[in-house]
Amino acid sequence: MAAITHSVNFPRVIIIGGGFGGIELSKNLKDKEVQVLMLDRHNYHTFQPLLYQVATGGLEADSIAFPLRKIFKGQQNFKFRNATVETIIPERKAVVTNIGEFYYDYLVIATGSDSNFFGSRELEHYTMPMKTIPEALNLRSMILQNLEEALIETDPLRREALLNFVVTGGGPTGVELAGALAELKRHVLPKDYPELNMNDMHIFLIEGSPSVLGPMSVQAQRSSREFLEEMGVKVMTSMRVSSYDGNKIVLSDGNEIVTKNVLWSAGVKGEVPDGISADKIVRGGRIRVDEYNQVIGYERVFAIGDVAAMSTEGYPNGHPGVAPAAMQQGAHLAENLIRIITKQPPVPFKYKDQGSMATVGRNRAVVDLGKIRFQGIFAWFVWMFVHLMSLVGFRNKLVVLVNWIWSYFSYDRGTRLIIRPFNRHSMTEDTRTK
Amino acid sequence: MAAITHSVNFPRVIIIGGGFGGIELSKNLKDKEVQVLMLDRHNYHTFQPLLYQVATGGLEADSIAFPLRKIFKGQQNFKFRNATVETIIPERKAVVTNIGEFYYDYLVIATGSDSNFFGSRELEHYTMPMKTIPEALNLRSMILQNLEEALIETDPLRREALLNFVVTGGGPTGVELAGALAELKRHVLPKDYPELNMNDMHIFLIEGSPSVLGPMSVQAQRSSREFLEEMGVKVMTSMRVSSYDGNKIVLSDGNEIVTKNVLWSAGVKGEVPDGISADKIVRGGRIRVDEYNQVIGYERVFAIGDVAAMSTEGYPNGHPGVAPAAMQQGAHLAENLIRIITKQPPVPFKYKDQGSMATVGRNRAVVDLGKIRFQGIFAWFVWMFVHLMSLVGFRNKLVVLVNWIWSYFSYDRGTRLIIRPFNRHSMTEDTRTK
Repeated sequence: MAAITHSVNFPRVIIIGGGFGGIELSKNLKDKEVQVLMLDRHNYHTFQPLLYQVATGGLEADSIAFPLRKIFKGQQNFKFRNATVETIIPERKAVVTNIGEFYYDYLVIATGSDSNFFGSRELEHYTMPMKTIPEALNLRSMILQNLEEALIETDPLRREALLNFVVTGGGPTGVELAGALAELKRHVLPKDYPELNMNDMHIFLIEGSPSVLGPMSVQAQRSSREFLEEMGVKVMTSMRVSSYDGNKIVLSDGNEIVTKNVLWSAGVKGEVPDGISADKIVRGGRIRVDEYNQVIGYERVFAIGDVAAMSTEGYPNGHPGVAPAAMQQGAHLAENLIRIITKQPPVPFKYKDQGSMATVGRNRAVVDLGKIRFQGIFAWFVWMFVHLMSLVGFRNKLVVLVNWIWSYFSYDRGTRLIIRPFNRHSMTEDTRTK
Repeated sequence: MAAITHSVNFPRVIIIGGGFGGIELSKNLKDKEVQVLMLDRHNYHTFQPLLYQVATGGLEADSIAFPLRKIFKGQQNFKFRNATVETIIPERKAVVTNIGEFYYDYLVIATGSDSNFFGSRELEHYTMPMKTIPEALNLRSMILQNLEEALIETDPLRREALLNFVVTGGGPTGVELAGALAELKRHVLPKDYPELNMNDMHIFLIEGSPSVLGPMSVQAQRSSREFLEEMGVKVMTSMRVSSYDGNKIVLSDGNEIVTKNVLWSAGVKGEVPDGISADKIVRGGRIRVDEYNQVIGYERVFAIGDVAAMSTEGYPNGHPGVAPAAMQQGAHLAENLIRIITKQPPVPFKYKDQGSMATVGRNRAVVDLGKIRFQGIFAWFVWMFVHLMSLVGFRNKLVVLVNWIWSYFSYDRGTRLIIRPFNRHSMTEDTRTK
């Protein structure tokens, strides 16, 4: 450990982003002869797989976030700066941020992904994304505010719009969000709003492809759809949103839904920092990297996780945008960085598919583990166990577990509070998405 | 219960405010022949005694808030509207709100208190109050942001200002806040910020009177001051803030403290709605009420809790602004309203002093129960037990207990997250205080 005091001579690795990939990379560089500097616009790591439970009042925001400084306490070659990256200048090996410039020997872009509105300013403005904690809290406030408003609305069409909830995108996020809304409607809201007729509340799930949970097995796709329909969600597949003006969705088949609540989970794109040339960006806004996660055409610049597209056998468009892929790349890149620094040849990355799962509601989940596939209550327990264990920090695990046990037996959601009212018109881009 | 279906004929009691008083009043009107309508600008009840733990990262905001609709689920004569009161028009028995007008037969003002800056716009603008959950979250963000900034600040005077924390007001809130900051400094921040020299961080508590915890016993005053000083807080009594420009406090003895962190807990004033004539407002911005909590000079208008000043024997300026006083008045007024409606004479209110307590830090609290006074670890357990039991809702009790136990053994605070960055300049009056 004495070497750490001389660490100024060690090469500096700057990691942009404290998501699953950035954290795993930093951890694996512990006690190695490098200086690690992590930059993130938030001072915490967000456990994105449970954001939908924050948005639907099931969990506190604080229990799925973890202070980044705390993760690395005691790691002496690690520093953190709470900073927003403005641009990268590879020629000078510099990262320009709102708090000044930092210089790297090796740069790792681990910025993850953001909502993809496919170029539509209208959808970006009127729908509610859910990629960050502030966004999930805005969503929670909006849902509750619209229910309060529905109570006092006398115009039937406007009331209908307040009570129609449309979730776009039938990936895990969309399925989980639609399921959570259906449970709110069934178990929680009737007690809170005895004045509202719950039959007037409708939940729609709109998916462009022919089935929900596209990348999962046919069994998982079929079961999750059945679960959703049992719970009262109207699932519309092979369907797209043509337009939405804040009051009315026009669908690709010409039908319309009046709604004030459109939850956007129809797509993500890599969050590429400025300074990376546009010709390096491929499908899904990801940065093209080689099998060592090095950004093609750049020296000493790497990308991992959702923001990176590594074309390998079986994954021509890059690996799936999930936590295990980011974590594997992070751990692997740590090893390769040390190899590169010590003049050994780097080792190509190989992705290990750890399976996939999604939960729809109480006792209802779907799990694919290679050839092993199961659905229902056991899948639901597996889903809970895996997510609980993946949460960073013992306190968070405990608080989430307490909430889940309590919700299971009480059929309730603990935190349906409008702490900061959502007001689209007073939102700036900054407060909305950061 | 059948009578409820005819409840339109029952007199309507409008209660403004879902604090301790309003809730107790509503609960005690359950199954009585009245219609209850509660109005609150928040959809939740705030457990104010623990706000300081939210501000210092010890508790999630959601665990000290409870949805008002949920408290009254199943109470058939109760309705809630999430509304901000604009004015009262007693001549028309009307309450004007942002969502329309409501008409009462009996009106109860239970709006509580807000921070009192004693007319100083400067103090109101530059200091941080802590009377609501959004305010406590702003405070939490500001504290953490200023620590991050101190790390990168090279100018020594500006760095000093970022690391000086001044708490104004030595009541329970100020004492608890100063103690919590001292514990952060001692146990949590050294691990999070190994680059910062913690000796550069200073915590001041400024109190105008000769001792902290003025209304408590001399033993409590002395012990709490000793506890604070042991923990490294500089306690300055018989001292006032003459001015503060956002960078420098000038004290009444002419000394100065450079600081970016001034936490305002030096005073409260009743939050009187518009429409109550100014000549009914007494010391502390409270509304003068008779011994039946009726606002003097108004018919069918009542006030309870912090906003009400009832001059009785031993309490010439009204009862203390604490939860038990509000709750006792709420329960008592419920009984009196029924008496008034059924043409029986109302009964004068009598305050039962249930004692008072404050916590300074781990194993350090002070308790006065009439003649019984004790300080230290047992007092600390009593304080925790009483506060835990007073929290509304089983889930909240459980989550708070888990957090406390975890903090006790880990010497840590779980939630030091900057979820919404605080920016004084982008704050409107509305987002700041509501």
